[in-house]
Amino acid sequence: MPDHLLIIGGVAGGMTAATWARRQSPTAKITVVERGHDVAYAECGMPYVFGGQVPNLDNLIRYQTTELKEKHQVEVLNNTNIEGLDLSRQFVEARNLKTNQTQKLGFDYLVLATGAKANRLDIRENYFNLEGVFSLRHMPDAKAIDEYLKKANPRQAVIIGAGYVGLEMAEALKMRGLEVSLVSRASDFLGTFTSELKKQIIAELTAKEIKLFPAEVLDIRGNKKVEQVVISNSVLSADIVIIAIGVSPEVTLAKANNIRLGASGAIAVKETQQTNFPNVYAAGDCAESHHLVLDKPCYIPLGTTANKQGRVAGINAVGGRTQFRGVVGTQVIKIFDLEVATTGLSLEQANKAGFMAKEITSNSVSRAGYYPGAEKVFTSLVYDERTGKLLGSQMIGKDMVAKRIDTIATALYGKLKIEDLLQLDLAYAPPFAPVWDPILYTVRKANI
Amino acid sequence: MPDHLLIIGGVAGGMTAATWARRQSPTAKITVVERGHDVAYAECGMPYVFGGQVPNLDNLIRYQTTELKEKHQVEVLNNTNIEGLDLSRQFVEARNLKTNQTQKLGFDYLVLATGAKANRLDIRENYFNLEGVFSLRHMPDAKAIDEYLKKANPRQAVIIGAGYVGLEMAEALKMRGLEVSLVSRASDFLGTFTSELKKQIIAELTAKEIKLFPAEVLDIRGNKKVEQVVISNSVLSADIVIIAIGVSPEVTLAKANNIRLGASGAIAVKETQQTNFPNVYAAGDCAESHHLVLDKPCYIPLGTTANKQGRVAGINAVGGRTQFRGVVGTQVIKIFDLEVATTGLSLEQANKAGFMAKEITSNSVSRAGYYPGAEKVFTSLVYDERTGKLLGSQMIGKDMVAKRIDTIATALYGKLKIEDLLQLDLAYAPPFAPVWDPILYTVRKANI
Repeated sequence: MPDHLLIIGGVAGGMTAATWARRQSPTAKITVVERGHDVAYAECGMPYVFGGQVPNLDNLIRYQTTELKEKHQVEVLNNTNIEGLDLSRQFVEARNLKTNQTQKLGFDYLVLATGAKANRLDIRENYFNLEGVFSLRHMPDAKAIDEYLKKANPRQAVIIGAGYVGLEMAEALKMRGLEVSLVSRASDFLGTFTSELKKQIIAELTAKEIKLFPAEVLDIRGNKKVEQVVISNSVLSADIVIIAIGVSPEVTLAKANNIRLGASGAIAVKETQQTNFPNVYAAGDCAESHHLVLDKPCYIPLGTTANKQGRVAGINAVGGRTQFRGVVGTQVIKIFDLEVATTGLSLEQANKAGFMAKEITSNSVSRAGYYPGAEKVFTSLVYDERTGKLLGSQMIGKDMVAKRIDTIATALYGKLKIEDLLQLDLAYAPPFAPVWDPILYTVRKANI
Repeated sequence: MPDHLLIIGGVAGGMTAATWARRQSPTAKITVVERGHDVAYAECGMPYVFGGQVPNLDNLIRYQTTELKEKHQVEVLNNTNIEGLDLSRQFVEARNLKTNQTQKLGFDYLVLATGAKANRLDIRENYFNLEGVFSLRHMPDAKAIDEYLKKANPRQAVIIGAGYVGLEMAEALKMRGLEVSLVSRASDFLGTFTSELKKQIIAELTAKEIKLFPAEVLDIRGNKKVEQVVISNSVLSADIVIIAIGVSPEVTLAKANNIRLGASGAIAVKETQQTNFPNVYAAGDCAESHHLVLDKPCYIPLGTTANKQGRVAGINAVGGRTQFRGVVGTQVIKIFDLEVATTGLSLEQANKAGFMAKEITSNSVSRAGYYPGAEKVFTSLVYDERTGKLLGSQMIGKDMVAKRIDTIATALYGKLKIEDLLQLDLAYAPPFAPVWDPILYTVRKANI
């Protein structure tokens, strides 16, 4: 009988593990257990459905379960919850949430791809009982929001949290025509960005008529349906509330079975994506990554990382041999017309980590200044003054910013020094860059 | 008396040398001698003036001579030709082309930034006597073309040469409403591109109604004004002809003074941009660069390289200490809606250079497939099968291609291996990339 690879979780990490395990091993038995109905969909795309750029949620689904079965010989048990795990006897207990029937599933190798769950507000516990209060994490959340938007036709939205999902949802609901208020703790309002980025993001949100409230959320009130969000200095009317105050790794199963967690609270993994149990792998938003600039584990849940980890877990679980070395912390977001891209460490993060960090910044342009469409680009570069080691970068602008950060991400992976950046042979033609690309333009300011 | 830095040539390499020498030394005497009227302009921008994206040639001028004098204390002698150079006695003989007066100018340090000249067709010598026949290299060429386009209102253009300038001029004149024929030798028609890039470029040119003639040019005929271009298999009517069959370094002065040339025919330089004479520097299109992938000198004249070399030459000439390590061969061009970007070595170049080269290719997308504006991206990666050393890449598509090549350019500079590419933490968000960026998507196909 072929080895049985059991994968818990069927979104980015889990489904990538399944399809790469299949490529690696034509014979392994592969089963994916997913609590929700849909598998293999793009969570990151959900805000764009609400904004109207993507017609509907089905467009985000990459594979149907039948296709996975027929094309990849991957068995999918959806609407199924894992209620017990026995690592020594190598089986799980799975309950079908539709039929309520349970079954035992044996396994030789296990991939935990249980993802992350939305953080909850530290107010009274039952605020989710009010109609119109949502968080956005998985497809069922998205379907509930989608249905509510169509049925209740809300006019006033309050978004709680100014992280990536909060900002994307603010844009989406504004584009849909709602009035949008964005509430976020004053102490860490856009806290990971340099002051210049923060300034430009706030200006863009304000220009697009998003009302900003740096405040604490004290209560969410209503009568069956949500009506108000009480914040420390005001009361906001609301007929839809999106709570987007970050996520935490879903590690209930791991914890209960002595699968080791890291300091971040996510599952600790080796470069092979193995946990402390050699036949148990973890991938995606439930797992840590190695931060290559800090040289220590971190928790930065992202779809692209989940895919890389899932690939490695899937290949290794069925006998292949590959590794995921880690991340440098690259992130990018579109906020209306702005592209905001960061990688590595900010000045503050770098100093906290013990580097003698220095930041150089510049304002330059995205294309040759005389070429139509050229827009301002602000660039910050952070490096260690003692060693010259490049540590990070932040970039913002309205044109051709997003993929420029990849140059720095690659330089960080390659452990380049700040002086190396000035030597880079970056693409130049007037429609695409000024003769000194923003990165080159900035690094000229370093004393090198 | 302060040291006198004399710079021959006032466009990219020369003017960058002047301004950076000034930043390095507030006291040095700096003189730039330029044969043409204008200095400090963007040659690469000239085609976009003819295409109408840039209103007029003056938009390309970065500094006026008065500004250079007043703001940077750089003396500019324009319309001035260097007629003699005496390296041992350290002076030049300069003739003002307007007044015909000559003067001797002493120097302590010399920067040769004499640029390149357009190659001539190997047909009868006097074809340039016909009105309407041009090459495009310097501002005087551009002014002549501009004037002719406005005055003679030509309808039928023949572009000879399908290099970067030929392709850009074909697009420019087409956008201006002319009928455009593009003639290029069959044997090396788009010869440096992989077959897939060639195919897509030809399809785009054809879709935009550029007539392609892979043929030899036998004659250019006319009666005072150009009328016909005779090619090996046809005769093309023409009332404007642009000859764009590459450039050669302008090294007359260097040759006459035993300044060493490299195998390419351009001036050989050290990392300091010094020639074989320690007080003589060279920068820009008259000089070689070190090719970091081939680890040997090369001649790839480009504005961005000229700027980097000029900066290094200028700083070092007045007592600073910096270096230009070289290029990896990055080039990018817009051809109508297409972005075509290459860096490093093609499969053929790599094999010729002795590598055991292997190419992997893929078709992927510029943004998440479900996000509006996503377009196909073709990516090729070349590496050495023995060592895994990354050697080059070619990319083509209609959206967000140009700056993606910078990732590979950076990886080449950092001497990464093909397997490293799969680890890169490239920016991901649905508006900017699929979850597997085209580079990651491609490298997954390598057997690593």
